[in-house]
Amino acid sequence: MNPDWTVIDGLQYSAWSREIFEQMHAGGLTAVHVTVAYHETTRETLTRLGEWNARFEAFPELIRPVYNPDDIAKAKTEGRVGIIFGAQNCSPIEDEIRLVEIMRRLGLMIMQLTYNNQSLLACGCYEDEDSGLTRFGKQVIREMNRVGMVIDMSHSAERSTLEAIAHSEQPVIISHANPSHFHPALRNKSNKVVDAIAANEGLLGFSLYPFHLKNGPQCSLDEFCDMVAWTADRMGVDRIGFGSDLCQQQPQTVLEWMRNGRWSKAMDFGEGSSNNAGWPDPLAWFANSSDFPGIAAALMARGFSDEEMAKIMGGNWVALLTRVAQPRDTTGPSKEDAA
Amino acid sequence: MNPDWTVIDGLQYSAWSREIFEQMHAGGLTAVHVTVAYHETTRETLTRLGEWNARFEAFPELIRPVYNPDDIAKAKTEGRVGIIFGAQNCSPIEDEIRLVEIMRRLGLMIMQLTYNNQSLLACGCYEDEDSGLTRFGKQVIREMNRVGMVIDMSHSAERSTLEAIAHSEQPVIISHANPSHFHPALRNKSNKVVDAIAANEGLLGFSLYPFHLKNGPQCSLDEFCDMVAWTADRMGVDRIGFGSDLCQQQPQTVLEWMRNGRWSKAMDFGEGSSNNAGWPDPLAWFANSSDFPGIAAALMARGFSDEEMAKIMGGNWVALLTRVAQPRDTTGPSKEDAA
Repeated sequence: MNPDWTVIDGLQYSAWSREIFEQMHAGGLTAVHVTVAYHETTRETLTRLGEWNARFEAFPELIRPVYNPDDIAKAKTEGRVGIIFGAQNCSPIEDEIRLVEIMRRLGLMIMQLTYNNQSLLACGCYEDEDSGLTRFGKQVIREMNRVGMVIDMSHSAERSTLEAIAHSEQPVIISHANPSHFHPALRNKSNKVVDAIAANEGLLGFSLYPFHLKNGPQCSLDEFCDMVAWTADRMGVDRIGFGSDLCQQQPQTVLEWMRNGRWSKAMDFGEGSSNNAGWPDPLAWFANSSDFPGIAAALMARGFSDEEMAKIMGGNWVALLTRVAQPRDTTGPSKEDAA
Repeated sequence: MNPDWTVIDGLQYSAWSREIFEQMHAGGLTAVHVTVAYHETTRETLTRLGEWNARFEAFPELIRPVYNPDDIAKAKTEGRVGIIFGAQNCSPIEDEIRLVEIMRRLGLMIMQLTYNNQSLLACGCYEDEDSGLTRFGKQVIREMNRVGMVIDMSHSAERSTLEAIAHSEQPVIISHANPSHFHPALRNKSNKVVDAIAANEGLLGFSLYPFHLKNGPQCSLDEFCDMVAWTADRMGVDRIGFGSDLCQQQPQTVLEWMRNGRWSKAMDFGEGSSNNAGWPDPLAWFANSSDFPGIAAALMARGFSDEEMAKIMGGNWVALLTRVAQPRDTTGPSKEDAA
């Protein structure tokens, strides 16, 4: 793998440890978008961020925070993996529009509007009926645009996703999902959504979560490369990246928290089922972050050029974040500027 | 008043409005330390910070946030008043050591360890018995040192204050109180505390709250200047500044919130009494921020030089904040630094 590339994994949620951070280094990762909240309230999200500060103190030679897109280049220079904070749900802002700016100041660079269910903002991909963006949702989208927080519709339903793209003044992303054309999971995205993301100059991060892949854990690297090639043709090579959805060493209780939060009395099985309630078996060719070079080699063998690979492996993520998540001067012009 | 001075008021808590911000401009203020929390929980503190963001959006030509000491010089250049966030109590960090760093990232530059009562950290000045710093309190002090948050003991009891000074690796301040030598209010500070603050290179901000002054609302500007002169002699001219404790246009309910929070079923009257339960009458010579030039003129007439006045009016505050509240790189050295 070309060491000059900036390599970004656009979604992970593991039981973080020295071993896992060392695997990121072994895999040549420059930065990783990590999930800090699924159903956490505002207050609980602060505890999650505090836990990350504890990791930054414990492993200063391995990781560093990414508060702004420029910090990714710093991570590369320093030889540390940059940690990009994101939420898979809007629970960190509760019902308060002003918390968007507060959370952005704390480094939350990416936020999903929904996680599977209806939220205060929009509809999730597992609801029966999608009534689109809510009144609050429309305001939050513009506030996210204003303060430089990326709108992620990975777990959202189709109408809500298309409406978010139309309402946003900035590109919208799908950080971790695959085209339904490749595998028709509820979490994967129709051609209509794929095309809308491309047209709005957003980004699709390819998921390596077996439930999102044809043949599940048996999906071959060749089949995965087929999907990447198809999507590159459809969306353009500037619109794709990785969002592996890697969840390492998490117990079943964490999977149940992700799926059930505090909303369900009955057990909800998400992409699984009562007969298949656990974590899926891992792919043979992607057990952890150290396997990225193997995927890159397969894509190059498939015919992607070095320049194209630099974009797919992370350059597109950097360009997207630099455009959308740059910190804005939200305090308005000074007297001098206005003069 | 010399327009080259950086003028800082080290404590205000008013019903913020355009009028009040314009009075700050009329008074030549460069920056003001404002209270964002008395008894607010972590979650409630975020709402208070969000309300400040709303003010920064509404009045961009008048005010700007001060996240770091360097922002004070920017405020001066821009002709906007810098707003320095502080808490008068440790309620914003609840029982969680990691919230110190989170709150500092949100701009909380100054925090009192107690507000009149016993807290999780130390003892307040209205308790009968002061058992000094708690186990949590000692850890929080070192964490505040580490992340660059100033320790303020304005409302703390004597033993706790002296122990905080001894335990801290950075100077400790009294943002708003006067020497008991001038007026023996419970909130004012003994010679022992005054001397300890001076010896640790901290800062005492003179209060203009009538309950902290000899003769209350009838205190004359001459008497106030006597106190400043006495304190300058005792502590040194580098160790003093202003912390007016100005509370403009606040209703009685706010005074009751400050005094009672959620802890008291009976009405607590703080520095007042059941016969004197309201806000004190204002001083004739200090109704709002626009009156600072008059105080400065009186002090110059008393014999303070321009150089000394530059320190007292704000230079000492800038030096203290620059030394204590500089943002630290809390993520440790990078590989490169370590090499």
